[in-house]
Amino acid sequence: MTEIQIAQSVTPKHIREIAAKLNIPEEKLEYYGNDKAKIPLDLIDEEKVKSNNLILVTAITPTPPGEGKTTTSIGLVDALNISNKKAAAVIREPSLGPVFGIKGGAAGGGWSQVIPMVDINLHFTGDFHAIEKANNLLSALIENNIQSKSRSLGIDHRTVTWKRCMDMNDRGLRTIVAALGGKAGGVPRETGFNITAASEVMAILCLATDLEDLKERCGNIYVGDTWEGKPIFAKDLNAEGAMAVLLKDAIKPNLVQTLEGSPAIIHGGPFANIAQGTNSIVATKMGMSLSDYTITEAGFGSDLGAEKFMNIKCRAAGISPKTIVLVATIRALKYHGGKSLKEITQEDVEALVKGLPNLDGHIEGLKSFGIPIVVSINAFSSDTEAEMQIVKEHCEKLGIPVALSYGWEKGGKGCLDLAEKVIQSANSCTDQFYPTYNLNDSIHAKMEKICQTVYGGKKVILSDLAKSQLRKYEAMGFGNLPVCTAKTEKSFSDDQKRLGRPKHFDIQIREFEIATGAGFIIPIAGKMLRMPGLPATPAAEKITIDKTGTIEGLF
Amino acid sequence: MTEIQIAQSVTPKHIREIAAKLNIPEEKLEYYGNDKAKIPLDLIDEEKVKSNNLILVTAITPTPPGEGKTTTSIGLVDALNISNKKAAAVIREPSLGPVFGIKGGAAGGGWSQVIPMVDINLHFTGDFHAIEKANNLLSALIENNIQSKSRSLGIDHRTVTWKRCMDMNDRGLRTIVAALGGKAGGVPRETGFNITAASEVMAILCLATDLEDLKERCGNIYVGDTWEGKPIFAKDLNAEGAMAVLLKDAIKPNLVQTLEGSPAIIHGGPFANIAQGTNSIVATKMGMSLSDYTITEAGFGSDLGAEKFMNIKCRAAGISPKTIVLVATIRALKYHGGKSLKEITQEDVEALVKGLPNLDGHIEGLKSFGIPIVVSINAFSSDTEAEMQIVKEHCEKLGIPVALSYGWEKGGKGCLDLAEKVIQSANSCTDQFYPTYNLNDSIHAKMEKICQTVYGGKKVILSDLAKSQLRKYEAMGFGNLPVCTAKTEKSFSDDQKRLGRPKHFDIQIREFEIATGAGFIIPIAGKMLRMPGLPATPAAEKITIDKTGTIEGLF
Repeated sequence: MTEIQIAQSVTPKHIREIAAKLNIPEEKLEYYGNDKAKIPLDLIDEEKVKSNNLILVTAITPTPPGEGKTTTSIGLVDALNISNKKAAAVIREPSLGPVFGIKGGAAGGGWSQVIPMVDINLHFTGDFHAIEKANNLLSALIENNIQSKSRSLGIDHRTVTWKRCMDMNDRGLRTIVAALGGKAGGVPRETGFNITAASEVMAILCLATDLEDLKERCGNIYVGDTWEGKPIFAKDLNAEGAMAVLLKDAIKPNLVQTLEGSPAIIHGGPFANIAQGTNSIVATKMGMSLSDYTITEAGFGSDLGAEKFMNIKCRAAGISPKTIVLVATIRALKYHGGKSLKEITQEDVEALVKGLPNLDGHIEGLKSFGIPIVVSINAFSSDTEAEMQIVKEHCEKLGIPVALSYGWEKGGKGCLDLAEKVIQSANSCTDQFYPTYNLNDSIHAKMEKICQTVYGGKKVILSDLAKSQLRKYEAMGFGNLPVCTAKTEKSFSDDQKRLGRPKHFDIQIREFEIATGAGFIIPIAGKMLRMPGLPATPAAEKITIDKTGTIEGLF
Repeated sequence: MTEIQIAQSVTPKHIREIAAKLNIPEEKLEYYGNDKAKIPLDLIDEEKVKSNNLILVTAITPTPPGEGKTTTSIGLVDALNISNKKAAAVIREPSLGPVFGIKGGAAGGGWSQVIPMVDINLHFTGDFHAIEKANNLLSALIENNIQSKSRSLGIDHRTVTWKRCMDMNDRGLRTIVAALGGKAGGVPRETGFNITAASEVMAILCLATDLEDLKERCGNIYVGDTWEGKPIFAKDLNAEGAMAVLLKDAIKPNLVQTLEGSPAIIHGGPFANIAQGTNSIVATKMGMSLSDYTITEAGFGSDLGAEKFMNIKCRAAGISPKTIVLVATIRALKYHGGKSLKEITQEDVEALVKGLPNLDGHIEGLKSFGIPIVVSINAFSSDTEAEMQIVKEHCEKLGIPVALSYGWEKGGKGCLDLAEKVIQSANSCTDQFYPTYNLNDSIHAKMEKICQTVYGGKKVILSDLAKSQLRKYEAMGFGNLPVCTAKTEKSFSDDQKRLGRPKHFDIQIREFEIATGAGFIIPIAGKMLRMPGLPATPAAEKITIDKTGTIEGLF
């Protein structure tokens, strides 16, 4: 069975039944059809947030086969519910763009999926669309002010860093010259589009604590400078009120369900490279308010996802996980041990052992946060008994609990061992996490602490451009922001070819960007693509729908 | 009270109560919150469609004060319900773009509005967003094919007429050079964005009879030519299936309510100049299936809106109105009589009489369709008894029933006289409408028949460019399409300064566009702006939302 066949083989329960499991009064539900609902922020209960068992699911360095963080998160929440624990999954919304590019969604896999899968992967409840409109309204206001005779702020159009966005893989929009067509068309300038998930508005939505905070953050977005070099923010254009109006529903978390009927809250989907890569603070707090165990995940490997989850999200939200689940696959470890994609489905104990240092690197980095760790091996049919034994013994030697998880194949039943170990581990956690750096460290010091503690590297080296940008941003008063590093996810280092556990490397920062609304500074190591293209044969060509509404080709 | 204060002073009934008035089973409702629902196409009943009293609301030549077609439509449906007739309004969805530009929505006015007004004017149920994504997916596929080495169709990128779209007033996107940034960025070319309401996908959604027909029409969209001059359609890019998947919910009509709790179906919002300017066929048929009186409207004056409603929409749908309501205001007639905006709130019998020929022109044009007409004077407090008497007597002399309507001030109670006259008129209608032209007339003949019969003009003159385009499109086999004229709405002629009832004019066609998916050819008289800009002081700057969710500055 394909993912979509599995997803469509289960009839979703009415969402009011799922809400009832979380004791949400029915009148609080804002239905979107019968199987999706938005839930209002007044259900967040800060007292309950304090006592909840928050579990972060992260992974080793990602490889082409994929590690299965979302599948593990969903399997785990189903297993916890089977074990009579009140558990909710809180995950990101998938981006529409890649759906039409490379086959694949972000709603779990096999028997550990969230449903209605098609809706979740298409328009869902319109959050991405609302973010896009808020982003692009600001763009239109900037363009209009540059054009204005009577009310000009004197924006030097060459300095405008704010881009439009669209939730579409469209390389043709990456770099454009806009505002052509003569005097009525505006002032021509080079600009471009980001994919919506890479928009700062997305990052803001995911860090805002309420609508008022969201509005203020929107006003704080830096858009460019005047001809005199004075920075211009969205609030100088009076943009934040209308942006907040456009986002008034998008800020409410979305309630759906797993295939087994466990509650799943899906909300926000910021990119994991140039943004924080994890669902919204309000969604996480919502899960924590309504359940006893809240399972959440963060994008890419722990060096990117977990680090930002802790230092940016948890710090801002005042929350702390009770356990970190580190997902690995035997296949991926063999890949890190030097094998090619074709070879990793064959037993290869030697390659596996050679790949284990990648796992060790993630364990070491995560240990710095002072939160107990459980390793989850996301099992595949190609894994052999001998291989599994090696990973198990390795983790036991390190004193890290390890579970074999069969979420893809068996759903919650396949993750009961993981659930048990997570419960034990969370019970043992008595402390809050230790952040990697203090906010009053210098930006450079923050980056070096991350590099040394989390990546296992040496120094952070800035280009001349990066140095001058840093001086500018520190002079603007933004030296106290947390850092949100944009780095390849394929290696601990900034070189995507260095698999396994590279040592003795420096991180080269080419340039900085700043997200003054979201509230972080982005050191960019290498080239980050914020607008993907479609592949040679786009998935869109095979996607269709027939008279009866049956969809084909989607996953 | 402002429009938004009036709208927010009424608590909407639960949408299931509104649905019950139309005997829609609750399980058929797809809720979007408690006050909006999508309704499935299988509720359309072709037998009931045949016997329904469809009423088209149109207007005299629009003037800056506005005539109030939507206000009249809503007042009329409320009045019919007061009179114990089962009536539903079926109108267009407003575009988000203008909301942030010039104050004003498209959901009626005063006590004749549809609610929830804020939602309807913002994201509503996401139809515009879905249309935008379907439009832009096709753009991304075109860009990708131009870029492709292995699967190129050989598209000459200079010939691509298909544009991206966005529901935003953003002049900077009107004309752009896209696909810059080197080899990975695509093949640079000049292109641009339309506002979403001006997209052919919007026109298609409004003309499609079901999802299968929608998919086929999407496949038939013409996008440009190969280097050898062969036309390329969306189906050559295998785009139609994925476009239809994106539109699977958007094609379902949306049910809301008037302030007085009458059912209102709001669906689709194509521009009235370069497209058909009226709600979807499926929404109209839905209203006709579920009620006895279906009130609908078409954009701009009757020369544009009613003409396209009849010759494009009714012909395609196989439906025919039983009565046409022609909306006029005393103020607008004085404007057509030569008075300025400042002067028209003062009594001026002479100017009024001078302006009556505009009304006569619309009556004459509408008579050609063979459907009974009722004139509705949308009353304003500045209208005097003497002025009203003149219009009344004038219509009576012409044998046209006339009603004074107070929908803005009094809601349904203000339109009881209109309702009574509409019921009488519809009862008297025994025939189907006569189309202005036959589909097998030549394109030029079709245009001249419209010009002479509906506009009261003489000849249609084609520029050299238009002539060569027409030859091309006829050679491609599209000579049998209906025409969808793009002409100023401010005059019967193609010169917006010629108010009143111009005579002895020709229509100059500058160029043609073709919408092979929607299924019409667009003769363009003058310059049509498909992407508006923001005004000097955009409404967006004053729009905001506070902690309690109260919105200010929107209308």
